[in-house]
Amino acid sequence: MNNIPEPTLRRLPWYLSYVKLLVGQGQQLVSSTQIARGVGVDSALVAKDLSHVNLSGRTRVGYHTEEIVDVLDEFLGFTSIHKAFIVGVGRLGAALMQDKGLAQYGLHIEAGFDVNEDIIGKQIADTEIYNIDKLKDYIEDTDTRIAILTVPIKEAQSMTDLLVDVGVKAIWNFTPFRISVPKGIVVQNTSMYAHLALMFTRMKGWKK
Amino acid sequence: MNNIPEPTLRRLPWYLSYVKLLVGQGQQLVSSTQIARGVGVDSALVAKDLSHVNLSGRTRVGYHTEEIVDVLDEFLGFTSIHKAFIVGVGRLGAALMQDKGLAQYGLHIEAGFDVNEDIIGKQIADTEIYNIDKLKDYIEDTDTRIAILTVPIKEAQSMTDLLVDVGVKAIWNFTPFRISVPKGIVVQNTSMYAHLALMFTRMKGWKK
Repeated sequence: MNNIPEPTLRRLPWYLSYVKLLVGQGQQLVSSTQIARGVGVDSALVAKDLSHVNLSGRTRVGYHTEEIVDVLDEFLGFTSIHKAFIVGVGRLGAALMQDKGLAQYGLHIEAGFDVNEDIIGKQIADTEIYNIDKLKDYIEDTDTRIAILTVPIKEAQSMTDLLVDVGVKAIWNFTPFRISVPKGIVVQNTSMYAHLALMFTRMKGWKK
Repeated sequence: MNNIPEPTLRRLPWYLSYVKLLVGQGQQLVSSTQIARGVGVDSALVAKDLSHVNLSGRTRVGYHTEEIVDVLDEFLGFTSIHKAFIVGVGRLGAALMQDKGLAQYGLHIEAGFDVNEDIIGKQIADTEIYNIDKLKDYIEDTDTRIAILTVPIKEAQSMTDLLVDVGVKAIWNFTPFRISVPKGIVVQNTSMYAHLALMFTRMKGWKK
């Protein structure tokens, strides 16, 4: 299952969230056509995508909704516990530390790191904020390999280099900066400001 | 400039954030090669992308960094004021209301709407939270047409239908649900949980 195409990987969470809704409404069976309508893609594509995770529907019966949820939840990693820490406890970093939703999806934020003496030693949502110079020891002691990067943009690359040096394996990058990493390190970019730019440019048709 | 390819649109904010850094460091000229290295794409692509917004570099001289920043800031909509409101003032909605960074990128959040009587009438970061039943009047009075959707997933589609009904033209969707809208309405999806799934699946190679 490791060579699933990226576009399929992007769509699987959509199917999951839609079918979870159906389960919540008590629906036991669902057709690929209904899923397709629910998330706005072609129904042949839905069937093909689901076959990548070994889910197949029966003719005139469809898929079992709970099976889809179980299989996708597990395949997408939401049922495992992934330990992570925040680097840069500003407004966004602090908000993520408080976001209980992330734990429901398998991401457990267990520490924050910052350089600001005013917040080092404090806690947010029962999670301690440490001095960044404690990072290396922390990673060795806890084997936490996922970093959530919410530092100011001009620190993004130098902090990334430090993270890689001390053994981080995956970086969830919330800065608008395209960080570079050695081969083998996983980077997931979630730049809200880049998304904002996309929305604004698409809006140009009706603005003015 | 309205038919710029989507991949170019996605890359322009990367160039902007990188070249802004250079301006901050006092650098006046930059080559496409340096930009390419900075953001991790091919240098021929950089030149082609920038030509879409009428930016061209001079041979052996390069681009003027400040010109790139000015042109991209304006093209991407970051220098205009776009009025918006939040629908669903939970943890994420409240965090976005406090995020001063968004205003720097042209998005001004001027109100919040919710159904929870405990927070209606209160303020977050000097921004008032209203009852959702005031939405129609608010939009007519203020001509605010951008909604930021941070409601629970099972409310995502019904709230979207309501937003479209009362005249919203663009929806920034933070729920993991793929909302459907009539043609002409702009939707920008920023699903953190879907990004989490992508990161987890990419990590499978080294996990275990």
